[in-house]
Amino acid sequence: MSHPSDIEIASAATLRPITDVAHDLGLGDDALYPIGHHMAKIDAEQLNDRPAAGKVVLVTALTPTPAGEGKSTMTVGLTDGLNRIGVKTAAALREPSLGPVFGMKGGATGGGYAQVVPMEDINLHFTGDFHAITSANNLLAASIDNHIQQGNALGIDPRRIDFRRVLDMNDRALRQVVIGLGGPAQGVPREEQFTITVASEVMAILCLATDLEDLKSRLGRITVASTYDRQPVTVDDIGVAAAMTVLLKRAIQPNLVQTLEGNPALIHGGPFANIAHGCSSVRATQTARQLADVVVTEAGFGADLGAEKFLDIKAPQADCYPDAVVMVATVRALKMHGGVAKEDLKAEDVDALRRGLANLDRHVSTMQRAGAEPVIAINAFVHDTAAEVAALRAWCEERGLRSAVVEAWARGGAGATDLAQQVSGALEQPAQMRSFYAAELTVEEKIRTLVTEVYRGDGVEFSTTARRKLAEYARQGWDRLPVCVAKTQYSFSDDPSLRGAPEGFSLTVRDLQVRTGAGFVVVLTGDIMTMPGLPKHPAALDMNITADGVVSGLS
Amino acid sequence: MSHPSDIEIASAATLRPITDVAHDLGLGDDALYPIGHHMAKIDAEQLNDRPAAGKVVLVTALTPTPAGEGKSTMTVGLTDGLNRIGVKTAAALREPSLGPVFGMKGGATGGGYAQVVPMEDINLHFTGDFHAITSANNLLAASIDNHIQQGNALGIDPRRIDFRRVLDMNDRALRQVVIGLGGPAQGVPREEQFTITVASEVMAILCLATDLEDLKSRLGRITVASTYDRQPVTVDDIGVAAAMTVLLKRAIQPNLVQTLEGNPALIHGGPFANIAHGCSSVRATQTARQLADVVVTEAGFGADLGAEKFLDIKAPQADCYPDAVVMVATVRALKMHGGVAKEDLKAEDVDALRRGLANLDRHVSTMQRAGAEPVIAINAFVHDTAAEVAALRAWCEERGLRSAVVEAWARGGAGATDLAQQVSGALEQPAQMRSFYAAELTVEEKIRTLVTEVYRGDGVEFSTTARRKLAEYARQGWDRLPVCVAKTQYSFSDDPSLRGAPEGFSLTVRDLQVRTGAGFVVVLTGDIMTMPGLPKHPAALDMNITADGVVSGLS
Repeated sequence: MSHPSDIEIASAATLRPITDVAHDLGLGDDALYPIGHHMAKIDAEQLNDRPAAGKVVLVTALTPTPAGEGKSTMTVGLTDGLNRIGVKTAAALREPSLGPVFGMKGGATGGGYAQVVPMEDINLHFTGDFHAITSANNLLAASIDNHIQQGNALGIDPRRIDFRRVLDMNDRALRQVVIGLGGPAQGVPREEQFTITVASEVMAILCLATDLEDLKSRLGRITVASTYDRQPVTVDDIGVAAAMTVLLKRAIQPNLVQTLEGNPALIHGGPFANIAHGCSSVRATQTARQLADVVVTEAGFGADLGAEKFLDIKAPQADCYPDAVVMVATVRALKMHGGVAKEDLKAEDVDALRRGLANLDRHVSTMQRAGAEPVIAINAFVHDTAAEVAALRAWCEERGLRSAVVEAWARGGAGATDLAQQVSGALEQPAQMRSFYAAELTVEEKIRTLVTEVYRGDGVEFSTTARRKLAEYARQGWDRLPVCVAKTQYSFSDDPSLRGAPEGFSLTVRDLQVRTGAGFVVVLTGDIMTMPGLPKHPAALDMNITADGVVSGLS
Repeated sequence: MSHPSDIEIASAATLRPITDVAHDLGLGDDALYPIGHHMAKIDAEQLNDRPAAGKVVLVTALTPTPAGEGKSTMTVGLTDGLNRIGVKTAAALREPSLGPVFGMKGGATGGGYAQVVPMEDINLHFTGDFHAITSANNLLAASIDNHIQQGNALGIDPRRIDFRRVLDMNDRALRQVVIGLGGPAQGVPREEQFTITVASEVMAILCLATDLEDLKSRLGRITVASTYDRQPVTVDDIGVAAAMTVLLKRAIQPNLVQTLEGNPALIHGGPFANIAHGCSSVRATQTARQLADVVVTEAGFGADLGAEKFLDIKAPQADCYPDAVVMVATVRALKMHGGVAKEDLKAEDVDALRRGLANLDRHVSTMQRAGAEPVIAINAFVHDTAAEVAALRAWCEERGLRSAVVEAWARGGAGATDLAQQVSGALEQPAQMRSFYAAELTVEEKIRTLVTEVYRGDGVEFSTTARRKLAEYARQGWDRLPVCVAKTQYSFSDDPSLRGAPEGFSLTVRDLQVRTGAGFVVVLTGDIMTMPGLPKHPAALDMNITADGVVSGLS
């Protein structure tokens, strides 16, 4: 008997009315903005008198491989597991992007019996947040070109516009375009590059803003272009920060849904994990901390990117440093880090696994440097052998690390109670975590710190462009901002082929981009794709819907 | 004391819970998908056993002028007026487009004390329908370019792609663009023209589809391109009709809101009134007929365009021919048709008004040819004089037409009870309306019929392109479809400067576009702008929002 698909499991579930889920959190109907019967926005302003006292558990992972590590599934499973052992817990997750659902990736709502529901809605339009971000982003973009068309009083150089239009769609043909063609009445011709909505600075801002005022101020501070005499132009110069905030008025409120086991999940925001910080929103985390005793949240990619950005970008904004860290590892991924090819993963290979532990080891020591002893969550897969799992557990024991084998995908919260016990134990002595670098360091110093402390490379090379930007940022007063490194997620280095725990490498910084609204400097170490394409056979081709509205082919 | 702004009036209103509004219509909570506390989607499938027995009142107007005629305000006011005199009535209106709200036009939710609420939501994201249409449209567009990129098995000619990307934004710079630049990995370079979402064929289809199956079939029939050997390529060839339907699953359900006086309003769909048919959805009209005794609905522009398309495109789809017609006239517009300039409208000029009546007269006789004696609704403005209004009413009396002066903008439903009485009287002997042309006529014959019967011109000229298209459509079997004329709304002719009731003109058909999904042929008589631009001082610059989320500057 084959395992049912994610959408089959999700569709067969009986959901609790979202008002019931909210009532369990002490939220009355007045604090809810329902969207259907199983989703609601929380009016976070009504909670202002409650302390954000809940403990934060950050779910991170070893370096990802094509084998997959199941971080969202683990986050959902752990939430259910903690509730099963009597700890009042809420999950805080990122919203999936709509575009990739029709491409190759599928959704991002967990898997198997550890999912958030209503899965179909969450993976499609959900509560409209991303559409609102798209609208706000594109209102700004249209306003910039309109400003130029209507006389260009600010003297914007059309060759130096950094702010881009977005769509929440995988649309390769929009990666490089020329707009404003057709003569004087149709605008000023210039090059443009559409990106996917999750790559918008508006998305990053929404996820970091603490309230509407902060949102409006941050939007106003976005640097969109340079003038002909190379002075930065901001949204406040253009004058549409308030109009953008009007469009985001509801999107800033966190969304409440539930796990398959009826436990609360706040799903809000979904910034890219490379050119942005890859965490769900500050507001969702803080709201969840006001409502539950424990919040389980995740950060994108491996600990070198996701957990690092959580600690250096998100946590300082809201003092939401994790009280415990869960690090997801899989036998499959460890074997790949140990040199096994994807097609050979089904064969037992304890030696390869042991070699691959060098990767996990480095991430563990990084978390230790930041102040936490991570709990190792071993996400069980069908072809894992007893010897492989035993080797992994023995390694954890040698290192003095708590660990648990988790079967949340196959069994839901019941498959995660061991992990829940370990996490609960860890929370008895909360970690005292800190950022990797001090706020007052320069951008260059911050990058060097990450290379040394987190990636464990030998040094950093800056391209001529990057050097020029460093000097410019110093002149503009942007050189003490946190850094957001856009690096391959498949390696500690900037070379995706270097699995395991590479040594002796140097990181090459190709370019920098300042995000004055979000408040960080993006450090580009390679070509980062910000507009995905559709594959040869997109998932869209296999979707269907019956006359009664039953959807299939969504994964 | 100045009259409060629309948003001030709307914000000060106490709204009924939408569930209460629904209960009055006999709708239980199970048939509702709430979005907040004051908006809901109606699960129309749950009403399938109820007859669509409500009578239909179509609100149309004389030829619009820059003075404005107030058709939406009249539709809302009449709905409130009818309810005040004891007739259980619902309004059926179009959804406003988000883009123009930030440009010049302002919203489209009525005005003064005759508005639908929550005004702010309806004018912004509302229930997400337009975002869903944008997504479905752009999934198709991306899929077409991806098909070409991935080998182009269908042999699509990139120079002959008719289906365009959309955004719900006034973005001039996207009117003419070149996409797919950047080399072999970034797609095939070609020209593209973004249009605003309301101009999408997906929008027209959503507004005509009777259910999910019909929606999926119509989407599949959209002609998107030609092959290198000039054969049409449809969405079914591309394979994404079902995926698009998945994205529109909820958007097809009509939205329930309320008037300022707490009466039900179904606001659903908003196709362009030139290149599309300009009416709210068939589903909203039919659902409203299942729930109320009378449905008041409107059609875009003057009767030569809006009412004509209602009778020739919308009504035949669902047998929803109007039982009564209300024709909105204003003293101001009549004076402009009589030759008065906009800046001179405040001065009394009965002679000009009498000359302008030629315009109203022609629309009235058109409605009579279609089977209805229209009720003339005189939308009162502050500077109308007693003599002007008396002259207009005397003319109505001479013609044997029911008429009423309406003060819905200033007084809400109380200002529309006279009109309500007249409409109620008219409904005692329902009109037997018909389309202007027989379904079996050719496209050319249908156009000639409209010129003769509705516009009252002398003849039609077809450009070489239009002639070629007529021949092609005959070969493809598209030459018996209804026609959708895209003509200036400011004149019966195709020359916007010809106000009043021009004679002796000939209509020039510049081009034709087939809409095989929506099921009509667009007849282009001039340059139709399908992507608006922002003005010199966009409305966006004057918007604001407080820390508590109170929005100003939205109109």
